[in-house]
Amino acid sequence: MSLPDNPNIAIVGATGAVGREFLPILRERGFSHGSLRLLASSRSAGSTIEHDGNSHTVQELTPSSFEGIDLALFSAGASISKEYAPIAVKQGTTVIDNSSCFRMDENVPLIVPEINRKALDNFSLPGIVAVPNCSAIVALMAITPLHRAVGVERMVISTYQAASGAGAAWMAELEQQAHDFAEGRPYTTKVLGRQYLFNLFSHNSPMGSDGSNEEERKIIQETHKIWADDSVRISVTCIRVAVLRAHCASINLTFRGKLEEDKAREILQSAPGVKVVDDREANKFPEPIDAAGQDDILVGRIRNDNSQPAGKGLNLFVAGDQLRKGAALNAVQIAECLVA
Amino acid sequence: MSLPDNPNIAIVGATGAVGREFLPILRERGFSHGSLRLLASSRSAGSTIEHDGNSHTVQELTPSSFEGIDLALFSAGASISKEYAPIAVKQGTTVIDNSSCFRMDENVPLIVPEINRKALDNFSLPGIVAVPNCSAIVALMAITPLHRAVGVERMVISTYQAASGAGAAWMAELEQQAHDFAEGRPYTTKVLGRQYLFNLFSHNSPMGSDGSNEEERKIIQETHKIWADDSVRISVTCIRVAVLRAHCASINLTFRGKLEEDKAREILQSAPGVKVVDDREANKFPEPIDAAGQDDILVGRIRNDNSQPAGKGLNLFVAGDQLRKGAALNAVQIAECLVA
Repeated sequence: MSLPDNPNIAIVGATGAVGREFLPILRERGFSHGSLRLLASSRSAGSTIEHDGNSHTVQELTPSSFEGIDLALFSAGASISKEYAPIAVKQGTTVIDNSSCFRMDENVPLIVPEINRKALDNFSLPGIVAVPNCSAIVALMAITPLHRAVGVERMVISTYQAASGAGAAWMAELEQQAHDFAEGRPYTTKVLGRQYLFNLFSHNSPMGSDGSNEEERKIIQETHKIWADDSVRISVTCIRVAVLRAHCASINLTFRGKLEEDKAREILQSAPGVKVVDDREANKFPEPIDAAGQDDILVGRIRNDNSQPAGKGLNLFVAGDQLRKGAALNAVQIAECLVA
Repeated sequence: MSLPDNPNIAIVGATGAVGREFLPILRERGFSHGSLRLLASSRSAGSTIEHDGNSHTVQELTPSSFEGIDLALFSAGASISKEYAPIAVKQGTTVIDNSSCFRMDENVPLIVPEINRKALDNFSLPGIVAVPNCSAIVALMAITPLHRAVGVERMVISTYQAASGAGAAWMAELEQQAHDFAEGRPYTTKVLGRQYLFNLFSHNSPMGSDGSNEEERKIIQETHKIWADDSVRISVTCIRVAVLRAHCASINLTFRGKLEEDKAREILQSAPGVKVVDDREANKFPEPIDAAGQDDILVGRIRNDNSQPAGKGLNLFVAGDQLRKGAALNAVQIAECLVA
């Protein structure tokens, strides 16, 4: 069973940082669809968004919003997903959810199409498919081809995460702080409650009793689910940096088998959705401003880790657009799998 | 043999980012000194700097600048140190050098006083003492107390380095880019040749054929020298973030012995020059803006690494003022050792 050829689509959270990305991505990819319904909270209802020459008025999300809708792309946070995704499914709408709400639900496939499209094989519509955590997607796009080749035994990841992961209000406040600095005013901290410009800080998600925050736990758990392999040992430190919309990560790998940097580079060069940016001579490696707006995950600093036995370890540095492959693009790719 | 009680001091590179820090630090620490000579390139000569109510005119650095000087604090880059430090020593001046020029010279002690003050025991004046790389100092201040307790077998470090490490011109251009953004102009890239605001990039030091840059190699080699232990295995990835003056690092440790997070926190709480900032409830951990202007290295996110056997691994996140403990303060502390 699959989605109809020209599904009627609803976008939940249409005015958010991820929500705004769906329409350009649908157009770029030539995703054929029927009607389009843009949904958001009552605060944003009534605003208009242009798409394909048409002006769409944003409607308030209500329990009856999904009538006649085949596919709903959710990106309005976990509490909205928790309340409305089951309502949508009950009305016959298939949900692709960007929130963390259903990711670890064993009945919900957690999908990065380049990695585990097969996990959709037994999916029956209507239902819910989850998009993984954005940092997990960005890191796994680069690591998975190497994992497939020789097996990853352990990984140590330190992230450099952008404002976009926390939504449009954070992006706006980071920009506002640059204005404040330029004009010699105290920093505006209405949304963040802190200085973000010229600063960085430990990820703001809730801290667990083991000293790991929720973002770190998500990356570990979701990697295990996406790879269907709980045995991979993972240590993650998640840090927010003053970047607008692309996440980076420094990744140290320990392999089960053996893999040297040249072979790893070769594997990554032919990996779908991955672009190797690894020019040692020009000192040119992945940067968030280069990843922003791009579909591909950039990977570089590919080098043998000499702190491990020869061939047993490798370092990487990745950058990926958190709003595109880390969220909206990955969701649209899942929709393409469900139409096919 | 030691420095005289009130040494005559020269500061080489007095108008640079580190150079400007020496005078306030000498005053704060009540470092008694005789005459003070501020030296810089011909470009900066003639400008004046206020200190203790006196106005000092910056003089041009020449081979005769060290006459009557007991102690010269160098911070004008490796090529200036290479040329002038031997001239100074020949004239009887002891040099404390912030550059990388002499760090790996086996006749030059490489000193972080809290860590290896003893390596000065056989130092004979006049001579050269080197200040380690700033990121190495910041990381080792937190790691060394744990290393002393149970031995570090391997460490994986990812840095988040500030503009200050590349000097005052970088700091100014990063600030300029915030002005450019606020005023809707293209970014000024005269010094950096790139967008730095809202961005990050792999450290700009020369890249070696093994894919490690010079900054990464320095941290590895200098750690081995400071600890007098080449067996510690180290993997480092150095990244520049859009922060003005404090370096951070995410550190993953593997121990020879066993050490759990509670004991590690206890050790760090009593370590000199280290301040534990590790409030899980308030989600408050080390940030560059809190470390800036502070003497102490901040350490937090102290937690067991569950990707390693119990007690064998730990994660840390550190922040330290690159211009103070990472450079000028550490140099003045070395001077204090030489006077005592």
